[in-house]
Amino acid sequence: MPDIIEPKTLRGFRDSLPQEELARQRIQERLSAVFRRFGFVPIDTPALEYAEILLGKGGGETDKQVYRFRDHGQRDVALRFDLTVPFARFMAGHAGELYLPFKRYHMAKVWRGENTQRGRYREFMQIDFDSVGTDSASADFEILEVMQASFLALGIERVRIHVSHRELFNRFLAARGLEAQYLPILRTIDKMRKLDRGELVEQLAGLCGKDRAEELLSFITPAPTDAETLAGMGKLLPPDCEPLQRLRALWACIEEGGLASFFRFDPSITRGLDYYTGVVFETFLLDLPDIGSVCSGGRYNDLASLYTREKLPGVGASIGLDRLLAALEELKALEAVSAAPAVLVLLLDEGLLPQYHRLAAELRRAGLSAEVYPEPRKLAVQLKYAERRGIPMAVFFGPEERASGRYTLKDLRSRKSYEGLTGQATAETARRLLQP
Amino acid sequence: MPDIIEPKTLRGFRDSLPQEELARQRIQERLSAVFRRFGFVPIDTPALEYAEILLGKGGGETDKQVYRFRDHGQRDVALRFDLTVPFARFMAGHAGELYLPFKRYHMAKVWRGENTQRGRYREFMQIDFDSVGTDSASADFEILEVMQASFLALGIERVRIHVSHRELFNRFLAARGLEAQYLPILRTIDKMRKLDRGELVEQLAGLCGKDRAEELLSFITPAPTDAETLAGMGKLLPPDCEPLQRLRALWACIEEGGLASFFRFDPSITRGLDYYTGVVFETFLLDLPDIGSVCSGGRYNDLASLYTREKLPGVGASIGLDRLLAALEELKALEAVSAAPAVLVLLLDEGLLPQYHRLAAELRRAGLSAEVYPEPRKLAVQLKYAERRGIPMAVFFGPEERASGRYTLKDLRSRKSYEGLTGQATAETARRLLQP
Repeated sequence: MPDIIEPKTLRGFRDSLPQEELARQRIQERLSAVFRRFGFVPIDTPALEYAEILLGKGGGETDKQVYRFRDHGQRDVALRFDLTVPFARFMAGHAGELYLPFKRYHMAKVWRGENTQRGRYREFMQIDFDSVGTDSASADFEILEVMQASFLALGIERVRIHVSHRELFNRFLAARGLEAQYLPILRTIDKMRKLDRGELVEQLAGLCGKDRAEELLSFITPAPTDAETLAGMGKLLPPDCEPLQRLRALWACIEEGGLASFFRFDPSITRGLDYYTGVVFETFLLDLPDIGSVCSGGRYNDLASLYTREKLPGVGASIGLDRLLAALEELKALEAVSAAPAVLVLLLDEGLLPQYHRLAAELRRAGLSAEVYPEPRKLAVQLKYAERRGIPMAVFFGPEERASGRYTLKDLRSRKSYEGLTGQATAETARRLLQP
Repeated sequence: MPDIIEPKTLRGFRDSLPQEELARQRIQERLSAVFRRFGFVPIDTPALEYAEILLGKGGGETDKQVYRFRDHGQRDVALRFDLTVPFARFMAGHAGELYLPFKRYHMAKVWRGENTQRGRYREFMQIDFDSVGTDSASADFEILEVMQASFLALGIERVRIHVSHRELFNRFLAARGLEAQYLPILRTIDKMRKLDRGELVEQLAGLCGKDRAEELLSFITPAPTDAETLAGMGKLLPPDCEPLQRLRALWACIEEGGLASFFRFDPSITRGLDYYTGVVFETFLLDLPDIGSVCSGGRYNDLASLYTREKLPGVGASIGLDRLLAALEELKALEAVSAAPAVLVLLLDEGLLPQYHRLAAELRRAGLSAEVYPEPRKLAVQLKYAERRGIPMAVFFGPEERASGRYTLKDLRSRKSYEGLTGQATAETARRLLQP
């Protein structure tokens, strides 16, 4: 007898069982519907690309997490590690076929050979949506609106999207001759949520002096209302400051749309160092603040400079589906999606197989999901299968029913039986019983 | 200025542009709905697995098409090249959590470094559905029914599913002492569609003599009706021949279900050599016979013998989505799915941005898709964008409309305008105009 190979998956990779997969698909359908409603269209790109495309020319050592190898033709290839780089390559490669502004969404797996501690996975589903080809308050606002509408579509109203503008901070520092300290100051600010105010002032004071440190902290500390925060900023920045004008335009749209309670102007949001150049945002679930941002993004002034000389400004956001799924589960916001059919047609007499299948087909035509138990096993075994799967109803058609030509429908939850039903009446009764 | 990297994809890999991606998603949604109606549930598995799992222990040289490499931990890993092997590993690995029979569907990408001539791609979407844990006519029939229902759901009625049974042919040969010639005879039969009858008889006669060759040919040549073919087979096989009994049971279900016109008993179907052990089937589009089978499969008596000692008989089929998509396009059976929103709110005065977005939100709440043009560009540019994307309607809210507080809706197809509308009336009019 040959040896058995242990049926294991790679560390950091997982199967998706039916219940989870249904939940995932449900989320993707909901979000697709939101994106479509805002005029975004779906695209897809290859999982595998030239390593040079994904990593840039100097990519040799830049990202050790990337799955990179030589293919059959000795080409240097890699699995995509995000959806942004492939999108940049896509925009550069299809410039002739596309119109601008181009608004796409992309839901797809990405791969990173990360440390699997702290519950990180090496394969995960990313959901990105971007609006490219325009630098405008309108496009910024639309992305923010899509974010809020996405969470609402998933049943989450208690969400807060923190918004800031990357340049705001630069302008503040520049006006004070602190450009040179930009990076260390930004890194310190990034730690803001982990440090208490005293520690923060101390670290900042080391970089720019105590007075500046206090001013800086008051600059990035939100006031009780967004209007006050914006007003406070206005006093610390030149009056023609574009970033501030952009934020004011956004807030006018947010307020006119009745969305003020979902947004928070938060100057402490910086979103890393290199990529973003305009508005930046992070999304927090008010009932699960500890899990951090579940949807982040911002504006960048040139998406695809590696692949084209055409300048493509854009704005977009990204949702990590696995983290979101875990959050929804914890919030019990995942509605129960049954993986089971509504009706099991019991196989009581193999000679009647064609009739069982004809009834199942009639139930399906009436909009119900139905299946025939596939073998003439003991009734107890068939009912145990229904119970194991959570099938709520079963149809009996045995010798007794055959004599009358009528079916018996049993509600397996209430154990109530409905006898003497025609096929149509079986379907109608089952539909009625399915209603909550 | 840095060099530009050419934004190219790997040979055999493609981007999916919005129109195609929408069509693909539409098909996946339709098929999911069919599978669910029959009680099938979705699963997913990792794209990357241990090479040993995917290729078996002797896999070193077995499949040169597989993308195989060493990961960061020097593990020997590979990208899945089909959905059957991962499913076998899945069933063995989750035996304790699953019930039997287990009916799953799986829609996912697979990768094969194939020769890209003849329009083959190296990354493609596979759609598999299987019923595992039972060897029964009921499960066989259900898979056939799902296949027919799948094509119907895609708008294809003119489909014919050719069905046979792998063992039928073995039994015929065994009863004539021709077991030893099984493989060469099967290979010759496999060429049946390419050879004319004379050539076929000649080649077969070389293997088993002229009389046997003629008998063989009449055995595998369908009669005008399936009933006659089955009756003719009955005369050439022992009366207790199980494969024939299985086929008769299937045909009883097919006829009772009113599905006879979609199926054809065709003894020439053999589906390769190793894997299948029971019923086998291939699906042909009557209006596109030349593209070959668009959905094939069969029964196997042991899915996961590499990974578990538990015997898992099953039956299933597989659809290649890319080929199907090409076929649907050729048949013009792809309903037009517009990638464009229904309404473009024109940005005529940047000061009114919040009002434009409020109107777009109102349209969306009324169930329409809508977007605001993001920049205050010339009207001609905005309308050109609408035309390029195929957006059918535009809303004007300029100085004139602002004075009255009413909107103008323009049907860009008929060039008719509707003036003096409230937000609600705009939504209602747009919905009416969208109707075909």
